[in-house]
Amino acid sequence: MQNLRIDGDRLWASLMEMARIGATRKGGVNRQALTELDGKGRDLFVQWCQEAGCSVRVDAVGNIFARRPGRDDSLAPVMTGSHLDTQPTGGKWDGVFGVLSGLEVLRTLNDFNYETERPVEVSVWTNEEGCRFAPAMMGSGVAVGKFDLDEIYAKTDAEGNSFRDELQAIGYLGPEPAKVAEVAAFFETHIEQGPILEDEEKTIGIVQGAQGQRWFDVTLTGQEAHAGPTPMKVRRDALVGAAAVVAAVNRVGHDFQPGACATVGQFDVSPNSRNTIPGSVTFSVDFRHPVDDRLSAMKAELETAAKEAAEANGLELDLREIWYQPPIVFDADCVAAVQQGAETVGLSAMEIVSGAGHDACHISELAPTGMIFVPCKDGISHNEVESATKEDCAAGCNVLLHALIERANAV
Amino acid sequence: MQNLRIDGDRLWASLMEMARIGATRKGGVNRQALTELDGKGRDLFVQWCQEAGCSVRVDAVGNIFARRPGRDDSLAPVMTGSHLDTQPTGGKWDGVFGVLSGLEVLRTLNDFNYETERPVEVSVWTNEEGCRFAPAMMGSGVAVGKFDLDEIYAKTDAEGNSFRDELQAIGYLGPEPAKVAEVAAFFETHIEQGPILEDEEKTIGIVQGAQGQRWFDVTLTGQEAHAGPTPMKVRRDALVGAAAVVAAVNRVGHDFQPGACATVGQFDVSPNSRNTIPGSVTFSVDFRHPVDDRLSAMKAELETAAKEAAEANGLELDLREIWYQPPIVFDADCVAAVQQGAETVGLSAMEIVSGAGHDACHISELAPTGMIFVPCKDGISHNEVESATKEDCAAGCNVLLHALIERANAV
Repeated sequence: MQNLRIDGDRLWASLMEMARIGATRKGGVNRQALTELDGKGRDLFVQWCQEAGCSVRVDAVGNIFARRPGRDDSLAPVMTGSHLDTQPTGGKWDGVFGVLSGLEVLRTLNDFNYETERPVEVSVWTNEEGCRFAPAMMGSGVAVGKFDLDEIYAKTDAEGNSFRDELQAIGYLGPEPAKVAEVAAFFETHIEQGPILEDEEKTIGIVQGAQGQRWFDVTLTGQEAHAGPTPMKVRRDALVGAAAVVAAVNRVGHDFQPGACATVGQFDVSPNSRNTIPGSVTFSVDFRHPVDDRLSAMKAELETAAKEAAEANGLELDLREIWYQPPIVFDADCVAAVQQGAETVGLSAMEIVSGAGHDACHISELAPTGMIFVPCKDGISHNEVESATKEDCAAGCNVLLHALIERANAV
Repeated sequence: MQNLRIDGDRLWASLMEMARIGATRKGGVNRQALTELDGKGRDLFVQWCQEAGCSVRVDAVGNIFARRPGRDDSLAPVMTGSHLDTQPTGGKWDGVFGVLSGLEVLRTLNDFNYETERPVEVSVWTNEEGCRFAPAMMGSGVAVGKFDLDEIYAKTDAEGNSFRDELQAIGYLGPEPAKVAEVAAFFETHIEQGPILEDEEKTIGIVQGAQGQRWFDVTLTGQEAHAGPTPMKVRRDALVGAAAVVAAVNRVGHDFQPGACATVGQFDVSPNSRNTIPGSVTFSVDFRHPVDDRLSAMKAELETAAKEAAEANGLELDLREIWYQPPIVFDADCVAAVQQGAETVGLSAMEIVSGAGHDACHISELAPTGMIFVPCKDGISHNEVESATKEDCAAGCNVLLHALIERANAV
């Protein structure tokens, strides 16, 4: 059993075949949720699962579950999965790798006639990307009761098409209730979407959990005035204050290592005219940390720094927290199964924390969960140049195989 | 002669009458250059000058010169003037005060049958604002040979109307060559368009000259990346670098007192998305200083700070100087005449440097020049709420009267 390995060529061939559905000229994929192309991708996956002898269920939000029976089929299944939808200029691996590595595990178990104690299921979660219908991670969110199904049905895309109509149109408005029943363990393999594994020259990321996030909107308001005749000492320059807050956000990010990320991504200056002193600046602050107390301490430092910058420059401050997501800590047994899997296969591995949201973050609210990351080139994702190697994909899939088997046999 | 005073009520009445031409509902004036309203304003001024016994000339760029003869009419005249055109949402005083205080001086000299040695002329310079036809300060610029007349004729407004056609349409394409002949002294009275006089509680600004200006375009380029999965230590965040340069620009402004102004007014972040680390930032830097060496030293400090910010954050730096205007120092005799005028009238006064460009800055290239500033409320100009008091207008006009007489009698 320790020597069991998946077929890396077969996995790669499936990835490349799926990538032809919605292929873009620049080598990426545009297969947005509930489009005709999403339907074709789902059809191909279902066909492959049926060819592998699986039964397939579809639930009311379009989530797909392919099941390989266990020795005791009454036991709660172990499950793995991710999503098949992409960004408009997405890549070949984001999501798809997690689905097709699950399929490859099923195929490998079949190859060796390996019987697990528990059933093994591979899931496809509807609309993880959220680019056509917001918010993101819809299918997994409905399945764990975080989103209301009727509200999700009523969501519309930019052309006014409803989620429900589009789901029905591609034939994936299923009869099963959109609710995850008992799951013994859930794993998701995914490209890292960051540069850490590549920089550290590790093949496997043993994901410990996901960063907590706090998002803020900040507006500093001073006084517009002519850049020429207005002396420095009477100015109330909103940009000078905002620049001090940007510096503070960056300092907080460095001070709260390990694990902190701190970013000002959106930044709008008004009136944004060359010879006018800026009257107001509105900007975003994105704080992330895997430890909740540290994340709260980062917030406190932001509040202090923003107040100081406002006072020092005679500005009015409006600082609002617009989103708070506590850190997620994955199940110890699942994390251990991933670590053991990497050791069994003999791969270099490191502990890592997910900076992005994944379906696994939702599922972790109901089921013991773990994730496996593999490197992606230059840390780039959500981009047509997104790239991962055949060897790394095979490595991640082998770790998944062993983690799933370990949990499937733990009864 | 020391007791000679202008008629403040008459000056104010003329200001208010002129302000009816193009009056806006919010109490401002919209009388843009070479519009029908500009023509009406000019007609009213010419009528007033003729009623005051002046001869009136119009040159090929539309500049108007109203002349009161001197005892020796062969001597070069002393001259005062400004502009009658306004911003689209301009005020009642910017420019107009300089023209009508000149007219009020002529009227006052008539009242007292006061004969100056030199002739006295009041000028109206075409299109100072530059909002309908760019660049600004056109008429004075052509008159001193800084702009080419045919190039100016060819300029078009947003609707494609040419400067020449519009000048002809309002009847001010004059026969005189657009070139200032010898002028013994030129004065311009103007609202300050800044808060200094008000803050210092002085009535008269004895303008020493105009700030030099250096304008820069700066681009810092790093690497766009996801805000979540990208560790702080590998980031190349263009906004963090740009914020450091904004802080440095502000520090330079404070370090180079007295006289320095330093502003980042335009600031554009790309891709400007909440959860993406900014890949590039492009921004303007506006440096002003009345002393050329100090202005150059400010530039050197900017270059050093920008290089340091780029290196500290792994960014590429593109820093270009796009405009350089050396400081202007007004004529010592003219400045002294203004100072003496304020003393004669018994007004509180202070030395000041103009932060904005004025027609006087152009004229100073050909003729000994001085300027007189009066306060404007809250330092606000180019705005319908622009406001100056009757008393301050009268005060500035009285200083002009005595400065002009002093220079008109210096032969």
